Amino acid sequence: MNIPHQPGARPVPAELIAAIKSVVGAKGWLDEADALAPLLVDWRRRFRGTTPLLVQPSSTAEVAEVVRLCAGARVPIVPQGGNTGLCGGAIPAEDGSEILISLSRMNRIRSVDPANYTITVEAGCILKQVQEAASDADRLFPLSLAAEGSCQIGGNLSTNAGGIAVLHYGNARDLVLGLEVVLADGRVWNGLRTLRKDNTGYDIKQLFLGAEGTLGIITAAVLKLFPKPSERITAFAAVNSLHAAVELLACCRAASGEAVTSFELLPRIGIDLGLRYIPGVVDPLRERRDYYALIEVSAAADAAGLRAGLEGALATAMEDGLVADATVAESDQQARRLWFVREAIVELQKFAGASIKHDVAVPVSRVPAFLDEAIMAAAAALPGVRPVPFGHIGDGNIHFNLYQPEGMAAEQFLGRQAELNRIVHDIVHAHGGSISAEHGVGRLRRDDIRRYKPAIEIELMQRIKQVLDPDNIMNPGKVV
Amino acid sequence: MNIPHQPGARPVPAELIAAIKSVVGAKGWLDEADALAPLLVDWRRRFRGTTPLLVQPSSTAEVAEVVRLCAGARVPIVPQGGNTGLCGGAIPAEDGSEILISLSRMNRIRSVDPANYTITVEAGCILKQVQEAASDADRLFPLSLAAEGSCQIGGNLSTNAGGIAVLHYGNARDLVLGLEVVLADGRVWNGLRTLRKDNTGYDIKQLFLGAEGTLGIITAAVLKLFPKPSERITAFAAVNSLHAAVELLACCRAASGEAVTSFELLPRIGIDLGLRYIPGVVDPLRERRDYYALIEVSAAADAAGLRAGLEGALATAMEDGLVADATVAESDQQARRLWFVREAIVELQKFAGASIKHDVAVPVSRVPAFLDEAIMAAAAALPGVRPVPFGHIGDGNIHFNLYQPEGMAAEQFLGRQAELNRIVHDIVHAHGGSISAEHGVGRLRRDDIRRYKPAIEIELMQRIKQVLDPDNIMNPGKVV
Repeated sequence: MNIPHQPGARPVPAELIAAIKSVVGAKGWLDEADALAPLLVDWRRRFRGTTPLLVQPSSTAEVAEVVRLCAGARVPIVPQGGNTGLCGGAIPAEDGSEILISLSRMNRIRSVDPANYTITVEAGCILKQVQEAASDADRLFPLSLAAEGSCQIGGNLSTNAGGIAVLHYGNARDLVLGLEVVLADGRVWNGLRTLRKDNTGYDIKQLFLGAEGTLGIITAAVLKLFPKPSERITAFAAVNSLHAAVELLACCRAASGEAVTSFELLPRIGIDLGLRYIPGVVDPLRERRDYYALIEVSAAADAAGLRAGLEGALATAMEDGLVADATVAESDQQARRLWFVREAIVELQKFAGASIKHDVAVPVSRVPAFLDEAIMAAAAALPGVRPVPFGHIGDGNIHFNLYQPEGMAAEQFLGRQAELNRIVHDIVHAHGGSISAEHGVGRLRRDDIRRYKPAIEIELMQRIKQVLDPDNIMNPGKVV
Repeated sequence: MNIPHQPGARPVPAELIAAIKSVVGAKGWLDEADALAPLLVDWRRRFRGTTPLLVQPSSTAEVAEVVRLCAGARVPIVPQGGNTGLCGGAIPAEDGSEILISLSRMNRIRSVDPANYTITVEAGCILKQVQEAASDADRLFPLSLAAEGSCQIGGNLSTNAGGIAVLHYGNARDLVLGLEVVLADGRVWNGLRTLRKDNTGYDIKQLFLGAEGTLGIITAAVLKLFPKPSERITAFAAVNSLHAAVELLACCRAASGEAVTSFELLPRIGIDLGLRYIPGVVDPLRERRDYYALIEVSAAADAAGLRAGLEGALATAMEDGLVADATVAESDQQARRLWFVREAIVELQKFAGASIKHDVAVPVSRVPAFLDEAIMAAAAALPGVRPVPFGHIGDGNIHFNLYQPEGMAAEQFLGRQAELNRIVHDIVHAHGGSISAEHGVGRLRRDDIRRYKPAIEIELMQRIKQVLDPDNIMNPGKVV
């Protein structure tokens, strides 16, 4: 899918390119096709764009000057982090009318304040680098997701990233105390506050979090840190039904309270496909059930009862007929092996044929009903389709992936995408859900959200966009 | 202090009043001076207003119709919750040009979903009522503050209330998943989502949280619930210095991890004044020090080590010379007695003479330096002034109250208010702090924030106000 031409799009003027190059210096730009190629297609290879120039500023002042120049020339600018997004939000238009900007050279940890439990980072920091800087100060930065080795914190904040620890720590938005942002006119808003409490007016930073670069460019952030867990216990359980999975979550929360950090759903078919395609996957349990739960509890201190609490909850759940079989990891290595089963389901997507993805959320209490209905409706629409729903059931967030029927041509299957999207999303909506729980909107869901959001909310989004970016130069064609 | 006349203010047209009365019916309005009087002065009796009409709609549809009528007539409308605010944000103008609206009749708990850990409430619910409904479902709604028996949740959300459990659970903003809002033109935005994750565009609800009714009227909300703590341990410690208090916080977090729910600072002078003026206050410790910490740790489960952890942290802190003396409550009654010392410091304000208040926040690591400087500067400006700094030191939030020097006339003392505010706020600002941590802006801090916020941020606030309330009818003259 190519990003469509913008109405009235025109080539980037040569004098603007020259002016930008002179702002950022020789190390601050690239325009060779080979070097740019990997940045011009998204991770899933579904969106492709072109650009005459990649800008890589080394400071907030340079970002500001680049944006000011683009604003003056009314040339759009597309921010890209680690290019790990799944909705095409960081790919420029196909017509070459947009400048691509990467903050990868702005990758300094500006400061860490352990007593205040904060870290101040530049947007180009790799997520793993932020985690490690926190860890070096005996603190935890809890945002964690599959792409953490390559995604950038600026992208994480701009997409309000989720991941595997949201149940306990919240989404990326919840982890931010302050932002520095280059606005659409090139001015810099320094909102790098390190405060837990600040009620001096509208919380302006909320506008830029999750806005996917359409309202401004996040250049730095103050993030919350947490006490580092002294113990993590990982368990894997075969549940007797989807309802049992939700009840098991309640049992674990009752037994461990807020110590439940992750609660992930895995389907049997995902494990089977993992065993088939991904070396290193080991089936953790003898009992076969349609669904499994991967559970992690953690505590920063006073962790003595942590294991006993989880084991007790699993034992009770077995007595109550919720769980058929379960194992609790006895070592870090065993825990990693359990998590690897979960990670393999993500990797599968490269091996198990074409898939149609849905990143949806419903209230936790609605997960069983949603899955029952969605699986039935997908099978009715396309007999033989293989639903592989997995993910963050503790947040009500299911990656509802449909794999092509065995023997069906990938192209034919993908031709049914719009239809299957519609079927699944309509059911999500009927359950009060979201059609993009953590992946964002980008280009992929820009039209879809109009079907499900109240018109008044789309209008409010457009008015916000209009007031903050009146010339529509910040990542146009994405989100709104 | 009277709320100044708005430029161009004019009396509310009689036909608008008649139209509103007919929308809400006989039970839905009041206009007798005696009945209105308590609503027309704020809790601290510093702001007074008048109004020809109090509207008390019984449904969102009625609120919407009232706002639509006011918008048509360009008559301003001022929302008021429990009237417990400290910044005059809920008091109408003195000139009688504004309608007052109360949502106290909209006080239904619409639903509770224990498995989803959510509750859906109308804006007029008293905070205590929300806490109790959560508790009845074996869940915790953690927002807790002195006015919880009379403040309304709509006001709590509109002011992004803080309170005594922010350290662990966050501010009011952090507790919200969805909102229903009547916009400035009378249309209703239904954003009552019950989802932990929803990345389908700009997070519109953030605009209305903490906006003090200047962008729309919150009529209902979906709130997060938490596992109910099975145990709470309360301790009281005499610390050897302000630095020791901050270090003690770090010790407690290290020993108890995220179990630290509250960490409050109390000054010796506050306890002494409490003993003098507030019956029932008992000095918890023999050792006299300038400052004390009130500490609460809690856990939903696995609480066996909670007490031992806290006792261990306090013992270590004594060995390390941070703490001179400490007690850990052995019963709920003892815990309540310790908390009463804290609450008495709030009550003091009615007995210990005139006070000049500052609700400020600095990074936790800066609290000692800030307090040292602010106390010295206040004493230099007004010899004999009695600083009584107390509050949520775990969040870096200090209620820096200055009591009048003994023997000075209250009026004379209060005449120094602007000067003392300026001195304290300048020091706060130098430490990267906020001049309103949890109380909000209202009328009281509307001018002050302009001195300390970047001009670009004030401009962004004004642009947001302009786009959402172009006729400036939503609580005008407050915040922006």
